[in-house]
Amino acid sequence: MKSYAILGTGALGGLYGGLLAKSGCEVHFLARSDFQHIRRSGLRVDSPLGDFHLPHPSVFDDPQDMPKVDVAVVAWKATCNDSLGEVLRAVCDQKSLVLVLQNGYDIERDAADVAGENQVLGGCCFLCSNKIGPGHIKHLDYGRIAFGEYSPSWRGRISPRMLEIAEDFQRAGIDMQPAEDLQSVRWRKLVWNVPFNGLSVVLRANTQQIMSDPSARMLAESLMIDICRASKQCGTEIERAHIDKMLIDTEKMVPYDSSMSLDYLAKRPMEVEAIFGNPWRAALSAGYRATYVETLYRQLLFLDAHNQSN
Amino acid sequence: MKSYAILGTGALGGLYGGLLAKSGCEVHFLARSDFQHIRRSGLRVDSPLGDFHLPHPSVFDDPQDMPKVDVAVVAWKATCNDSLGEVLRAVCDQKSLVLVLQNGYDIERDAADVAGENQVLGGCCFLCSNKIGPGHIKHLDYGRIAFGEYSPSWRGRISPRMLEIAEDFQRAGIDMQPAEDLQSVRWRKLVWNVPFNGLSVVLRANTQQIMSDPSARMLAESLMIDICRASKQCGTEIERAHIDKMLIDTEKMVPYDSSMSLDYLAKRPMEVEAIFGNPWRAALSAGYRATYVETLYRQLLFLDAHNQSN
Repeated sequence: MKSYAILGTGALGGLYGGLLAKSGCEVHFLARSDFQHIRRSGLRVDSPLGDFHLPHPSVFDDPQDMPKVDVAVVAWKATCNDSLGEVLRAVCDQKSLVLVLQNGYDIERDAADVAGENQVLGGCCFLCSNKIGPGHIKHLDYGRIAFGEYSPSWRGRISPRMLEIAEDFQRAGIDMQPAEDLQSVRWRKLVWNVPFNGLSVVLRANTQQIMSDPSARMLAESLMIDICRASKQCGTEIERAHIDKMLIDTEKMVPYDSSMSLDYLAKRPMEVEAIFGNPWRAALSAGYRATYVETLYRQLLFLDAHNQSN
Repeated sequence: MKSYAILGTGALGGLYGGLLAKSGCEVHFLARSDFQHIRRSGLRVDSPLGDFHLPHPSVFDDPQDMPKVDVAVVAWKATCNDSLGEVLRAVCDQKSLVLVLQNGYDIERDAADVAGENQVLGGCCFLCSNKIGPGHIKHLDYGRIAFGEYSPSWRGRISPRMLEIAEDFQRAGIDMQPAEDLQSVRWRKLVWNVPFNGLSVVLRANTQQIMSDPSARMLAESLMIDICRASKQCGTEIERAHIDKMLIDTEKMVPYDSSMSLDYLAKRPMEVEAIFGNPWRAALSAGYRATYVETLYRQLLFLDAHNQSN
């Protein structure tokens, strides 16, 4: 078993870190706003996997106090990456790995700049989970992680260290799947995130309202096609059936307010660069201008700037 | 002097019709909500051209009661065109002309279907005017009309009947300019209307907020370029300097809430098809897919539908 630092004890870090700790792994949590509460009252997780409470987790508010670990798990939003370098230098030594569980495209870049490309892994979480109070996570549904090596030198293969990490997570009850191609995992998730995160903010609408309106649905599909073209230009081909499946799945979902829409309504920063700017720029560098994505991207930048300045 | 029917006695029809009546033209107004008020108290216009009051204008609420006229001026919004056929059949005979002063592209089509393409003229108004109360128009600034023949057979020429109409308007103090190419007038106005009407609604922003935000300004410029490409594909070339002038003029303007934004906030229907759908479809038929315009178009359709159903 490896030791873990969970950077960000929110809906994602609190759940996965909590499950790892419960299963017997050495886990150290970095918390900001909830630090005092967790130190006093512990970490509480309500989950379909079974509710549990960790009375005395190893929790820190200053990364300098944390021990070095085998794996640092980046579990806060990409908009909080300002302090990433300082935190990673505190919890990593030369052998440490960094597992980036954030939304978006090429979002491992920040960690790779600090820890070195070869020490970084990335993963997409398919998870419905909210923080409903200080140190209190409510896991609603799903929870799968698809993850892979960030370095292109590993593309198409699964590394032994991936299997070790997956084993720890799986022992903790987490459905963690090693993937041979991290970029493919990330692009395929963007096919959903770009239309539904973006349109939910600009149109102030949930998934059901978007899917039941002919114009919004058509625009969602155009955005999906645009992301697939961007992806193809960057070397990852996505089959048309993936779009159709996403549309059908979304139609069947209960009306869902995207995480970006919740951030917007709560006047928190949105992950605009991670989910929109990075893939749009990657495609542009590769020679494809994704104009549907670009329009939404620029609108979200405006809304994000004016949301926070209000 | 010709006789006129002013269809829609609002910010636009009230001003131009009022000026024509004051100058001695035979003018008949069609009013809906303001009919009783205008019949009792007349029509009041506050204008930099001089305030005036018409105590007993010829006003109707039923088009069947109106006399036949030489020129029917369509002065309501394109969203009110449902009754256009019935109204035009009431006030037009075979020799009557229809002058369509609505925003958008190919917005003369509805009138042409009723009166015949050869009887239709269209014009763009560059006007700041509001209705501030029943039968009470406040003209703030500008007021120029550029107009031309709708039939392609007249393209590139100014007809004698255009000169007669322009003479009536000019005698009334209205800066009315005959144009040899109506399509060019309409496309050039869309270069402003598409970005600033559309983005003002989607981003809930005025012209100044759009122009002072780098992403929104860049998107406005991309939309302008997209409209110029659409226009070129439809046979009207617009020089790049026109875009630059529009951007500079808008930057210098006092912060301005577009008419579409005012309609949206008042939960009135927006002219989405006239300003966005028609030019987008025209370009698509001609072989150009205007994707920036399309994104905004579909977003506005969604917002319009949900604004009215709320």
